Amino acid sequence: MIRVPFEEVQGVLVRIFTGLGFDADAAKTCARIFAEASRDGVASHGINRVPRFVSYVQSGVVDVRARAERVSAPGSAWEQWDGHRAAGPLSAITCMSRAIELASSNGVGAVGLRNTNHWMRGGAYGWQAADAGFLGICWTNTNPNLPPWGGRENRLGNNPLIVAVPSAEGGVVLDMSMSQFSYGRMETAHHRGERLPVAGGYDKAGQLTDDPGAILEAQRPLPIGFWKGSGLSLLLDLVAALLSGGQTTSEIRRETAETGLSQVFIAFDLEKAMPAAARNVLIASVLEWTASSAPAEGSGSGIKFPGERTLKARRDSLNGGVPVDEAIWNAVVALAV
Amino acid sequence: MIRVPFEEVQGVLVRIFTGLGFDADAAKTCARIFAEASRDGVASHGINRVPRFVSYVQSGVVDVRARAERVSAPGSAWEQWDGHRAAGPLSAITCMSRAIELASSNGVGAVGLRNTNHWMRGGAYGWQAADAGFLGICWTNTNPNLPPWGGRENRLGNNPLIVAVPSAEGGVVLDMSMSQFSYGRMETAHHRGERLPVAGGYDKAGQLTDDPGAILEAQRPLPIGFWKGSGLSLLLDLVAALLSGGQTTSEIRRETAETGLSQVFIAFDLEKAMPAAARNVLIASVLEWTASSAPAEGSGSGIKFPGERTLKARRDSLNGGVPVDEAIWNAVVALAV
Repeated sequence: MIRVPFEEVQGVLVRIFTGLGFDADAAKTCARIFAEASRDGVASHGINRVPRFVSYVQSGVVDVRARAERVSAPGSAWEQWDGHRAAGPLSAITCMSRAIELASSNGVGAVGLRNTNHWMRGGAYGWQAADAGFLGICWTNTNPNLPPWGGRENRLGNNPLIVAVPSAEGGVVLDMSMSQFSYGRMETAHHRGERLPVAGGYDKAGQLTDDPGAILEAQRPLPIGFWKGSGLSLLLDLVAALLSGGQTTSEIRRETAETGLSQVFIAFDLEKAMPAAARNVLIASVLEWTASSAPAEGSGSGIKFPGERTLKARRDSLNGGVPVDEAIWNAVVALAV
Repeated sequence: MIRVPFEEVQGVLVRIFTGLGFDADAAKTCARIFAEASRDGVASHGINRVPRFVSYVQSGVVDVRARAERVSAPGSAWEQWDGHRAAGPLSAITCMSRAIELASSNGVGAVGLRNTNHWMRGGAYGWQAADAGFLGICWTNTNPNLPPWGGRENRLGNNPLIVAVPSAEGGVVLDMSMSQFSYGRMETAHHRGERLPVAGGYDKAGQLTDDPGAILEAQRPLPIGFWKGSGLSLLLDLVAALLSGGQTTSEIRRETAETGLSQVFIAFDLEKAMPAAARNVLIASVLEWTASSAPAEGSGSGIKFPGERTLKARRDSLNGGVPVDEAIWNAVVALAV
């Protein structure tokens, strides 16, 4: 692992995306989203994901010239947009921005986005809302990569759900997928020869296991809370399709790549109900009360609030450089011709 | 367990609630909410809960004459209501109805309700939205009864989250709390001398266990997905307080009973985006695809969609009577003087 200054990471990525045919603004925005994911400690959806994104552009899954477009407004506070298979991060930013505008006008605003591509780190759009002083809720569906409770074949997606609240420190931002461990997390543990801290899925014999390699081989991650995460994943898929007019996981499976996704973006204009100063006091008191619980036996990391690790990784990256895997970074730099 | 006709259950409850001082409409509505919970297989928040509700009225925690009132509108599609410590189910019905009205006008509508009492079965308000043809999302916070991940003292609530979509069969309705097992579920298993199907919390020695009695003794249920449910519980609490202007779990702990809660009700007018017929086809195809997964090893109950058990329990109750614990039913009947 080496550390590269954030501006250098962004600069390399701008050159790559410009070379792919994105216009200057779009290249800059895409570069920021990928660079910020690595800056915030989520390299799996940051620098490590750039080669796959490049291949998606080259194979036509991602259309560099397309832009998301509003196609209907079921109401003054809810709109449906078509992503036209543009770069996922560009469309997601546009739609969270639009949800924020709708919330400014109506208190709450919602955008359903269909026919879009992978948005990379979902948390990015929660932080986007929090940075603007808004409460943000968003999620995406995906292709089938999670078995429903009671079944062993993948029929659900490990759809990430993001809930973000602005705070004095930046935000309290939950970014969680429906599987106990993301595929990226399991791959990392597998490469390091580590066990998962708790059971994360089933092996090929149908036994619950904490061996990430066995779960990856069986392709059977465990939903959070067993039947509960399974049910929540199903509802997130249904709601995303209904609010966007887009595809469900059952239809996305027919795509040749992870594309044609449906996403939801909801924002609330908190400032209209409570000034930021009072809100920050309320949030700080809740975080303080939560952290005051006596530590659990053997708890190494203490009690963290959602987003706390992100904020620390961000500070460390901005001070000492963005952590990157040297081999991957060299491969990415080689793409910036 | 005996079975009592639904109309008889409702009749007894109407007499109890009228006797407590509720006006005729309110008594009828409260009776319906409690009776429907038992009808739908959730006796813990139905008939079994009536004695505690009666004691809450008698001790002044629930005010029979109070009614929820709109106190502000941060925007055209988002309102804040004060429950004035009226009966929780009455205020919850009023606020989901209002969210539906706001959705009819704006596409999406949201109501934050503060200063309210326990709403009993949260799923009731999801079914309310689905029965009206609307998508409904709602949740409540509660007093501290769940430890945060990394801690052993309760600082979070096992806040139930409901996501409901109307379907041809009635609805796909997820009603899940943040603990792997509700206290009611653990108490039932404990009384029957049964183990939980998976680990549900910690014993007094801090060991994960499937012994419901040991978890109840330690008062340390496990959040779904470990750190994930812990984070989601925290965000549901924060968002409920911010959208309603009400109390957080950290403040509710100072109440002498489970009261002064904050709740959120969100509705979408789906019909404005897709006719019910097309929506029903979409939902049926997703449910069929999900259920087509090969059964997991040793899975006894097969693949169920959220709400499927509810609909079956409802049919069975309407055909053969509402299942009630005979001793509890006799105690409830004795309250109907």
